[in-house]
Amino acid sequence: MQFTLKNPLDMHLHLRDGLILENVLKYSANPFIGGVVMPNLSTPITTVDLASSYRLQIASLYDHFEVISTLYITPSLNKQTLENAKNLGIKILKLYPKGATTNSQNGLDSILEENTLEIFSLAQDMGFILSIHAESAGFSMDREFEFLQIIQEIAINYPKLQIIIEHLSDRRSIDMIEKFSNVYATLTLHHITLTLDDLLGKGLNPHLFCKPILKTPKDRDALLSLALCAHPKVSFGSDSAPHLLSKKLTSNASAGIFSSPCLLEQLVELFETHHALDKLQAFVSDNAIKNYGLTPKINKTIIFTKQEQSIPAYIPVGEDRIVPLNACQTLQWSIQAIHSFKEN
Amino acid sequence: MQFTLKNPLDMHLHLRDGLILENVLKYSANPFIGGVVMPNLSTPITTVDLASSYRLQIASLYDHFEVISTLYITPSLNKQTLENAKNLGIKILKLYPKGATTNSQNGLDSILEENTLEIFSLAQDMGFILSIHAESAGFSMDREFEFLQIIQEIAINYPKLQIIIEHLSDRRSIDMIEKFSNVYATLTLHHITLTLDDLLGKGLNPHLFCKPILKTPKDRDALLSLALCAHPKVSFGSDSAPHLLSKKLTSNASAGIFSSPCLLEQLVELFETHHALDKLQAFVSDNAIKNYGLTPKINKTIIFTKQEQSIPAYIPVGEDRIVPLNACQTLQWSIQAIHSFKEN
Repeated sequence: MQFTLKNPLDMHLHLRDGLILENVLKYSANPFIGGVVMPNLSTPITTVDLASSYRLQIASLYDHFEVISTLYITPSLNKQTLENAKNLGIKILKLYPKGATTNSQNGLDSILEENTLEIFSLAQDMGFILSIHAESAGFSMDREFEFLQIIQEIAINYPKLQIIIEHLSDRRSIDMIEKFSNVYATLTLHHITLTLDDLLGKGLNPHLFCKPILKTPKDRDALLSLALCAHPKVSFGSDSAPHLLSKKLTSNASAGIFSSPCLLEQLVELFETHHALDKLQAFVSDNAIKNYGLTPKINKTIIFTKQEQSIPAYIPVGEDRIVPLNACQTLQWSIQAIHSFKEN
Repeated sequence: MQFTLKNPLDMHLHLRDGLILENVLKYSANPFIGGVVMPNLSTPITTVDLASSYRLQIASLYDHFEVISTLYITPSLNKQTLENAKNLGIKILKLYPKGATTNSQNGLDSILEENTLEIFSLAQDMGFILSIHAESAGFSMDREFEFLQIIQEIAINYPKLQIIIEHLSDRRSIDMIEKFSNVYATLTLHHITLTLDDLLGKGLNPHLFCKPILKTPKDRDALLSLALCAHPKVSFGSDSAPHLLSKKLTSNASAGIFSSPCLLEQLVELFETHHALDKLQAFVSDNAIKNYGLTPKINKTIIFTKQEQSIPAYIPVGEDRIVPLNACQTLQWSIQAIHSFKEN
């Protein structure tokens, strides 16, 4: 039994830099044609020079993978930088509320204020996509829900600005994409398959600690339904976010789930289980190409076959290691072949 | 400035055994006159012989501390064991739903079934107190709430059986103690001061991982109010539950907060901050003495003074260590003197 996907895209991806980048990149770059690479490095990607050199750094490691660059919105982002970004082909601006997640300390303290509204206005006029980590500073389980009033405000006041609610985690957010023509979303594998109980229902598993936090079974089920029908305004974005084991097994563990190993195989298995394999192509590729207006220069055909494999227990990074989502779990599907073709 | 407490009692306490017991005991046994010592050892206290030898083990380490023993309810608990327990002066039966927390694998799979109802009936007739870890097997944030229907069932069908909902964590449980004359509760320091956000709102802190899981700000506030007014049906029970650091910094961390170091000083500070110092005596002693029908043989007067101290960063246990609640935090109050007197 075989299954084929064309041109899969990961529309929310953390690749980090240095040694981690070198070790994690292949898990995304091999099966995917490209990904939206997030800018929250320890030195955040706030300028076009930084974006450009980060893109080159990734390209030097792997050729057949398109980096869809993002620019980190800080309070000092100005028109000149936006123009430079536009010229470099950067399409996506990423908004982090200050302190919301890993390396978000340079993010925005206050969002609906003059300075930021000016950025939204420019972004709208210049045709940028606004990608948002949509969480308030409130109680964890309600952060995304509380942020929706800001989403609504932006959606109404900038009707031509395309807004992406990243890593949807709360079923109450689904309304937003139904209600506003300019609001879209990405979905991760973990938010559509896991709940808070997987993190802490028995023992506490730091490898399942992420932001936004995993929610209730009702949230998971509603988001899974959204994925399984490949809702036209929703794209797959793994939010794969590697952290070293030494940063996970501490009294102050870092937030992020490293989900890139065997990611497509897990999606195939999930969609097959739910009799929705025919929707996977739209969920992991077609919707993104359409909604983000992409014209892929790299083409890949991924051929899956029913052959058992195990997700690795960990990947080594120097003396340290990174533990992936569902480590050691047995999968029914494997990738049999990848045909890749790059236009010059 | 001074403050005095008489005969403090910790009505929910895990002391473990072996090396951990030897290292943690003094933090409870020094300031408290006694405590309800929970039976969930790796070999659970399911017989009177085990209870007796555990009591002796503790007594051999510390003289001026009364062990209020508990018997672990397993499906095979019978009338003879209950009679033996009664003769040894054991007053409290502890019910763990199977799998609900540390060493609960010998607990009850199904609670409202014939076998268990027979135990409740005998317990009522023989005057035992039924202490309950009140959590369903459902979604973490709703486990206590879902269990309330079982509490209600027991409360109605065994109206003379005194029931303690241990470590109240959900504000929806407060109704039970208002509604049923035979339902009581204990409160921990952590559930009245912390929320889920302290566990996972920024980084993930395994030292704040416990069962029942910390809940919402509204839950915390409602439970704190219950403590600050020293509700007559509520006693202090720390649920101090030490785990070695090596069991906390893993991919499957153990549930339990080690809160016994500087516990009374923290309570004094908390009640002072909320202008409720006059209620603390009832909360940490008088309510328990009355509700559990205790006649202390040990008397202690604890004199507190305003003098800064720090909660220890950890306590060593062999090559390992245990990290307490609020490690390294500065406190305004210290214990100046403990006057202890034991009747023979």
